[in-house]
Amino acid sequence: MKLASLREGRDGRLVVVDRALNQYTDAAGIASSLQQALDNWSTAEPRLRELAAALESGQVVTSAFDPALCSSPLPRAYQWADGSAYVNHMELVRKARGAEMPDSFWHEPLMYQGGSDSFLGPREAILLGDESWGIDFEAEVAVVTDDVPMGVSAADAVSHIKLLMLVNDVSLRNLIPGELGKGFGFFHSKPSSAFSPVAVTPDALGAAWDGHKLYLPLRAALNGELVGEPNAGVDMTFDFPQLIAHAARTRPLCTGTIIGSGTVSNVDRSRGSCCLAEVRMLEILERGVASTPFLRFGDRVQIAMADADSRDIFGEIDQTLERAEF
Amino acid sequence: MKLASLREGRDGRLVVVDRALNQYTDAAGIASSLQQALDNWSTAEPRLRELAAALESGQVVTSAFDPALCSSPLPRAYQWADGSAYVNHMELVRKARGAEMPDSFWHEPLMYQGGSDSFLGPREAILLGDESWGIDFEAEVAVVTDDVPMGVSAADAVSHIKLLMLVNDVSLRNLIPGELGKGFGFFHSKPSSAFSPVAVTPDALGAAWDGHKLYLPLRAALNGELVGEPNAGVDMTFDFPQLIAHAARTRPLCTGTIIGSGTVSNVDRSRGSCCLAEVRMLEILERGVASTPFLRFGDRVQIAMADADSRDIFGEIDQTLERAEF
Repeated sequence: MKLASLREGRDGRLVVVDRALNQYTDAAGIASSLQQALDNWSTAEPRLRELAAALESGQVVTSAFDPALCSSPLPRAYQWADGSAYVNHMELVRKARGAEMPDSFWHEPLMYQGGSDSFLGPREAILLGDESWGIDFEAEVAVVTDDVPMGVSAADAVSHIKLLMLVNDVSLRNLIPGELGKGFGFFHSKPSSAFSPVAVTPDALGAAWDGHKLYLPLRAALNGELVGEPNAGVDMTFDFPQLIAHAARTRPLCTGTIIGSGTVSNVDRSRGSCCLAEVRMLEILERGVASTPFLRFGDRVQIAMADADSRDIFGEIDQTLERAEF
Repeated sequence: MKLASLREGRDGRLVVVDRALNQYTDAAGIASSLQQALDNWSTAEPRLRELAAALESGQVVTSAFDPALCSSPLPRAYQWADGSAYVNHMELVRKARGAEMPDSFWHEPLMYQGGSDSFLGPREAILLGDESWGIDFEAEVAVVTDDVPMGVSAADAVSHIKLLMLVNDVSLRNLIPGELGKGFGFFHSKPSSAFSPVAVTPDALGAAWDGHKLYLPLRAALNGELVGEPNAGVDMTFDFPQLIAHAARTRPLCTGTIIGSGTVSNVDRSRGSCCLAEVRMLEILERGVASTPFLRFGDRVQIAMADADSRDIFGEIDQTLERAEF
């Protein structure tokens, strides 16, 4: 099942989208928004699945699906926690600046508390004030959970994964050292993220999803040129249930919680990168200096994932960076 | 005007409470929840004020107000960002461990991105798994904003403050060094916070609120003994409009955003402290060793603020620490 939120009001209007991403049908009779559906998932899910089946078999009124009309599946959420599960990526970042990575990074996930009140739509411009902030994209996979009890085990966390999405976790690289140096984590350096046009239930991913990782290449492109397509299931040190258990160690998680994977990264360098920071790190390691600049106003970022038959799964995140006017 | 959310469903049932905190009347005809009222504040606010006036003049059906029936005014929120505006407090913390505080801390606010999906009610037990985590309370003041545009100035931020509340920002002191050492900020060390039974509009505070700071003592007690009652308007290096402007530097803030002051702290030591960590720091500075322990299971924390005539403003946060069973 694939769900999307059409831009309407603060929380969007919930629709069910067909597998091919061509048609949608209104789900407002079941829940006014995706958050409302998640608030009552045990009753809403079977009804949404019935509607999805009717949509596939042509038994309901449909409209043409246009990702440009979508907000993020959750235009705002109560919880967005982003892991850094591809430890290889972090090791590379450290290596490039000549720093040792603590061994603990291989044993306990790193995760930051993100802001979740103003997500961008998948085709919405990234509006920011200053190119010198070092604006970067980060292509990631994320899961949406139902209510997760405090202290959940990774084994029990598996059943709490209800939806998957793609993320563009916009990052302001040049603001990060200062913020992390102050010790309180990211704030200015992590502005609004954007999510894929549709969120899908795990079963829609077939064998590519094993309940823990999503084994498909995540494609990131800049101005029409491929930057990378690492496989999201490969080199993921901490899987999604482990990330959920980590997030829930000292508190429960509310239904609609979004847990991100962190920038997808493979040890196999031929797969390229899912953010410009990694591209630049590799340049530093190879040639001593980074030649790829961070994003400039007017740059276009595309993030998507296709299945084994090259069919688009989530719709494409396709955003242009623009200067915010204050 | 004073607003509360009775425990009902995920977002509570919105009620208007009288100035004396004795009676309430249902506001469900205006908005089903406080978040919904904030989502439509320009139309909801005048209607809620009419209801509040009718409540004061005895023209509506009322019920006895019982804080034990309350959730936090926003049981879950889209944004909770907590400043550390009493720089004196931070200087003390550093001093106790022999570390210099960067001069920049006096010029730019420290703020962390909090988790906002599972707030505790003002009389709800603090459930945590392990006393050895160094469980502490932090008594703070917080404001709730409407929609704040990215890049707002501190001067313009004044008008975006719609409500004020008290906070118990529960902190796990012994988990903080490890988390901050990893560089990604607080996560496990900041479990669910609790807020006061009612949120009040700025005008309900009279002359004690000048649009920037709240000039009243904030009282924190442990097991019935006063720990401190520093004045929240004194020694606040960054005021609320400055904290809002800081939070909105690289992104807009959604209506219902909660911005916290950080632990209230006065240079005048006779005012005591609003968290145990500060008590312990003072002990270390005076006697070389901290003798006050962090919270133990069964301990009771009370946080409240009275006006100049000793009348309770927000209702009391009154919580007991209990062991979570996994």
